[in-house]
Amino acid sequence: MASGSAFRVIATEGAARCGVLTTPHGPVETPAFMPVGTRGAVKALLARDLEDLGAAIILANTYHLHLRPGEALIGRAGGLHRFMGWTRALLTDSGGYQAYSLGSRRTITPDGIRFRSHLDGTPHLLTPESAVEIQAALGSDVAMALDECLGSPATFEAARTSMRRSLDWARRSRARFLALQAEAGAGPSPTRTNPGQAQFGIVQGGVFPALRAESAAETVAIGFDAYAIGGLSVGEPTETMYAIVEQTAPRLPADRPRYLMGTGTPEDLFACVERGIDLFDCVLPTRNARNGQLFTSAGRLNIKNARYAEDPRPPDESCGCYTCRHASRAYLRHLFLSGEIAAATLNTLHNVHFYLDTMRRIRDALVFGSFRNLKASFEQSFNPPSA
Amino acid sequence: MASGSAFRVIATEGAARCGVLTTPHGPVETPAFMPVGTRGAVKALLARDLEDLGAAIILANTYHLHLRPGEALIGRAGGLHRFMGWTRALLTDSGGYQAYSLGSRRTITPDGIRFRSHLDGTPHLLTPESAVEIQAALGSDVAMALDECLGSPATFEAARTSMRRSLDWARRSRARFLALQAEAGAGPSPTRTNPGQAQFGIVQGGVFPALRAESAAETVAIGFDAYAIGGLSVGEPTETMYAIVEQTAPRLPADRPRYLMGTGTPEDLFACVERGIDLFDCVLPTRNARNGQLFTSAGRLNIKNARYAEDPRPPDESCGCYTCRHASRAYLRHLFLSGEIAAATLNTLHNVHFYLDTMRRIRDALVFGSFRNLKASFEQSFNPPSA
Repeated sequence: MASGSAFRVIATEGAARCGVLTTPHGPVETPAFMPVGTRGAVKALLARDLEDLGAAIILANTYHLHLRPGEALIGRAGGLHRFMGWTRALLTDSGGYQAYSLGSRRTITPDGIRFRSHLDGTPHLLTPESAVEIQAALGSDVAMALDECLGSPATFEAARTSMRRSLDWARRSRARFLALQAEAGAGPSPTRTNPGQAQFGIVQGGVFPALRAESAAETVAIGFDAYAIGGLSVGEPTETMYAIVEQTAPRLPADRPRYLMGTGTPEDLFACVERGIDLFDCVLPTRNARNGQLFTSAGRLNIKNARYAEDPRPPDESCGCYTCRHASRAYLRHLFLSGEIAAATLNTLHNVHFYLDTMRRIRDALVFGSFRNLKASFEQSFNPPSA
Repeated sequence: MASGSAFRVIATEGAARCGVLTTPHGPVETPAFMPVGTRGAVKALLARDLEDLGAAIILANTYHLHLRPGEALIGRAGGLHRFMGWTRALLTDSGGYQAYSLGSRRTITPDGIRFRSHLDGTPHLLTPESAVEIQAALGSDVAMALDECLGSPATFEAARTSMRRSLDWARRSRARFLALQAEAGAGPSPTRTNPGQAQFGIVQGGVFPALRAESAAETVAIGFDAYAIGGLSVGEPTETMYAIVEQTAPRLPADRPRYLMGTGTPEDLFACVERGIDLFDCVLPTRNARNGQLFTSAGRLNIKNARYAEDPRPPDESCGCYTCRHASRAYLRHLFLSGEIAAATLNTLHNVHFYLDTMRRIRDALVFGSFRNLKASFEQSFNPPSA
């Protein structure tokens, strides 16, 4: 990889890999899960919590930060790391997905995405070039190329048109990224706060293997630092998603990390690691925590359930997180029903711990060649036959 | 003091005292400020945060816990300490204030307070006896006697009638408390989870010195473990509040802690310590944190203010709390405007630290005989003449 990043595979088991992604803000052991810090904060957590939980990399949303407080302000503050007090690795998305899903009156043109801010209705145009520039000011360790979000379900024709537009945008994204690198000095500036930033391209193509194959080949030909699979976990059947991952991952360079965007459930993590994925992000552990759903080694636990009203046990008796060491299900249920902020914090601490700990156990298993055993035992305990 | 508590004065300066209140859950150095944990959690904080901040005692609201999850459930869980995972001291109010202010269709009769739950409209009757029993199940280290909340402003006649009813209720509260002590064995049970619980009586009398004097004499004659001053900080002028505290505190036994309920601002803490108060509670630091107001050594800071949009300084440059070590005003403003939970947490951490640190500095100054100097320097920096 060019830029300030490097990737090394340490162990493999089938298609699954264990490795280390080195970034300007420290190493990220892979497979890794990235908690989502939408607006420069992972909801209900502080930076120290994420450090304590062992998060090596988190994700922030370019769309949200562009609208408020704006990348210029963050750039003048020295970049997003310094602004939010996070010293480890950061990945930013391109902003395209939220511009499409949150912006109002959005239209996609060959130029980019026109939309109105969901905050104040102001008009914005997000282009492949501006997405590069915004992320350069934010200074994430990994920037994503702008891609077009395909509505689901889509016809083959629509998916092909969209995929080819994403390819065009990918070429423009890469060109702007490399031009910025050439223009700028070696040191950081408010418009480019992290000179070691890497850029990932994104494979699209919907649920159509031929389109995915074309997108993978062409995106890799552009020559990004690494590659992501986008446009999945958007409503298609799980088995379709797994099949697309299974056929797409081997088309991406083995010496670069592979990032599956917006996925997924704990089951998805195992299934997609098995198919060669190295990086994941998803709002599931944090959003579900705030809705009272806890992920435990014995499966999903809904803390609202009346059966927990007097349950003195922690959410997960085999878990060592702060929440499980200090709070009973009865107390967590009370906090949740009372609308206490502590409910969000305690549930989020637990769920993020569960995700990060699951990834740790997956990495350890890969090193010892016992990933398949771990996956089998996880599936048995997480979704017991007669739950 | 009877019960599991003891109080010892270590140093005095004028009417101000520094001491130690020993409780079944550890010592409380006084003067002390008690953060408010309404429903069994201090809003936006976890128990570990309060421990890290050095809180030796917190307050919980009997009204809220009685309605949800109910004292019987908490009693079966071993008491409020165990239920909420708090190992240090706890004080519970009697529930009267919230029954009056939050309950709907509440009527005060000689028997007690009839009200309907603000949660589900169910009818409840809070009597001096039931307030004792609820708190016995909760197992706080300090229980408060039920008193009548006088609307403000009130005529002398209304204040006298109300004060005398509170005296009657105080006698019934004490009788029920002592009867429970006599009935129960020495060990804890679900209906009396903390056999070392102390009970404080409350002086009322509105803004009328003669009524305050009568209430103090009669309440002390009942023989509580210690005494509080209630019915202040309810809208009367600050100078009136200070005058009532000044004339009432010396009427309370010097060998027992004196608790001023529901107060107050940082200025109030200094003014009332100077007049002989040992214990305080107030929602101000936590509630104002959630509204974006930070207490700093240079005064109040409203983080919403546009002037902080790019301010790289911490809220208080002389503060050592987590927030001031890790977050800029610019970041805190961004989090607040974005409605992030982290804004509530970071602001609350800072404000509670400010209150507890102010009390620490007051105690140190009292030991060294420099309280008046500290108060003068605090007043100068906290409310600078030309802010």
